[in-house]
Amino acid sequence: MLTKSQIKLINSLSQKKYRNQNQLFVVEGIKVIKEFLNSSFVLEKLYATADIFYTSHDKIELISEKELQKITNLKTAQTALAVFQIPKKQEKKITGLTLALDGIRDPGNLGTIIRLCDWFDVQNLICSEDTVDCFNEKVVQASMGSLSRIIPQYVDLKMTLNETKQPIFGAFMDGKNIYKTSLPKEGVLVLGNEANGISKPIVELMTQKIAIPQFGKPHTESLNVATATAILLSEFKRSF
Amino acid sequence: MLTKSQIKLINSLSQKKYRNQNQLFVVEGIKVIKEFLNSSFVLEKLYATADIFYTSHDKIELISEKELQKITNLKTAQTALAVFQIPKKQEKKITGLTLALDGIRDPGNLGTIIRLCDWFDVQNLICSEDTVDCFNEKVVQASMGSLSRIIPQYVDLKMTLNETKQPIFGAFMDGKNIYKTSLPKEGVLVLGNEANGISKPIVELMTQKIAIPQFGKPHTESLNVATATAILLSEFKRSF
Repeated sequence: MLTKSQIKLINSLSQKKYRNQNQLFVVEGIKVIKEFLNSSFVLEKLYATADIFYTSHDKIELISEKELQKITNLKTAQTALAVFQIPKKQEKKITGLTLALDGIRDPGNLGTIIRLCDWFDVQNLICSEDTVDCFNEKVVQASMGSLSRIIPQYVDLKMTLNETKQPIFGAFMDGKNIYKTSLPKEGVLVLGNEANGISKPIVELMTQKIAIPQFGKPHTESLNVATATAILLSEFKRSF
Repeated sequence: MLTKSQIKLINSLSQKKYRNQNQLFVVEGIKVIKEFLNSSFVLEKLYATADIFYTSHDKIELISEKELQKITNLKTAQTALAVFQIPKKQEKKITGLTLALDGIRDPGNLGTIIRLCDWFDVQNLICSEDTVDCFNEKVVQASMGSLSRIIPQYVDLKMTLNETKQPIFGAFMDGKNIYKTSLPKEGVLVLGNEANGISKPIVELMTQKIAIPQFGKPHTESLNVATATAILLSEFKRSF
C-alpha cells in the first residue's frame, strides 16, 4: 500500500527544488530502471505492479495499477516506477573530448544529447548552471537509460572553459565549415541555447567557430540543437 | 467572432480522418505561418489576436485571446493560428538523394527529419503508408516551417523501392560502418520504425546495410531515429 506521504514525496520530485532537498529523482519503465539498477546509482525504492524484477529486494514494493497512476508522470504508466538517489557531485578532469552545453532548456534535447554522448563515448558532459536539470523526469525518459552512464556536471561554464588549455570549438551559424576543419582528438565542443545560441561571455573564449553547412539555397533557420550535436560529435569521432 | 462551427472544424483537424475529409490542416505561431504564406501552400483562413501580418487579406480574422484558447493545440497559444489546404499529391520521380521512412510513428521524429531534409537539401522524402501523417499538428510544429518546402510523399514503399534502379542503403545495427562506406551522390537511404527498425519485406530490397558505429564498450541500445538520420544525411552530403 502506498502511503499518502509516499505519494506526496514522489509527486514533489517533478520539481527541482524538492529533488535537491531530498536528493532523489524518479525513473520510469522497466527497461530504463534495469539500466540504473546495473549502474552505480543507489536505489531508494522501487514500486512495481508485478514482480518483474525476480528479486526479493527489500526496497521493492508491489502496488496496484491504480496506485501507480497516482505517482506516474507518464500518460501511460509503465508497470514500474523507481526512486533513485542523486549521486554526489564528482569533479572530473577535462580530458579527451568534452561536450559543453550553454543554456539548453528543452528536457527532450538534453536527454537526446546524453544518449548521443553515451553512443559516441563522450564521458565528459558539462553544462552551464542555467541548463535544464538532468534529473528532470523528461530528461531521464529521453535519455533512455544513458543517464545511468553519462552524468552531466553543472559548472560555472565561463570559469571552467577559462581554465582549460584544450582548444574550444563552438557551434555557430557563421562558423567554419565543419567538413573542412581538421578536428583534434581532445578538445571541448560547445553548443548553445535553442533560441539564442552560445552566450556572449562564452563566445569570447572560443578557439574556433565551426558550422554545419546548409545545402541548397539558404532558407531554413537552423538545425535542432540535438541533431546538430549528433552531426558534430560524429565529425569529431569519425576519424579516430 | 469565432462561430461554433469554425471551432468545431478546427478542433476536428487534430484527427487525420477530418484532415483528409476537409483537406485542411493547422499551423500555429507567426514565424511558421509566415513560411507557409511564402510557399505554394494555399491559405484557407488565418485567425490572429493582433493584426501582425500587416495585410488586409480577406482570409484573416481578428479574434480574442480567449477565442484563440478554444482552437489552439498548444499549451501556450501563439498569437495566431492558420488553416491551410492540404496540397494535391504530386508524384515526384526518385532522383538525387532520396530519404525513405518505413513506419516512423513519433510526430516529433518526423518533424525533425523534415527539418533535416530541408537543411541538407534532400527534396525527395518518401514515407510508408503507416508512417505518421505529416499534417499532424505535432509534425507541423516540430518541422518548424520546413514542411512548407519539403512535403513527404506517402507511398507503397515496397513497390516504390522495387521500381527504382538506384542503390538502396538501409540503416541497421549490424550494417557496414558508414564512415568506411563509399556513398554515392544518388541513392535511397531507408530508416525504419523507432522500436522495430526496417520491416522484413523492405529489408530484402537493400543494396547495402549500413550502420553508425558505437564508440567505447557496447552498452546503449540505439540512437534515436532522428539523430541517426542527421548523422547519415551528413555522411551522404559531406563529400559533395
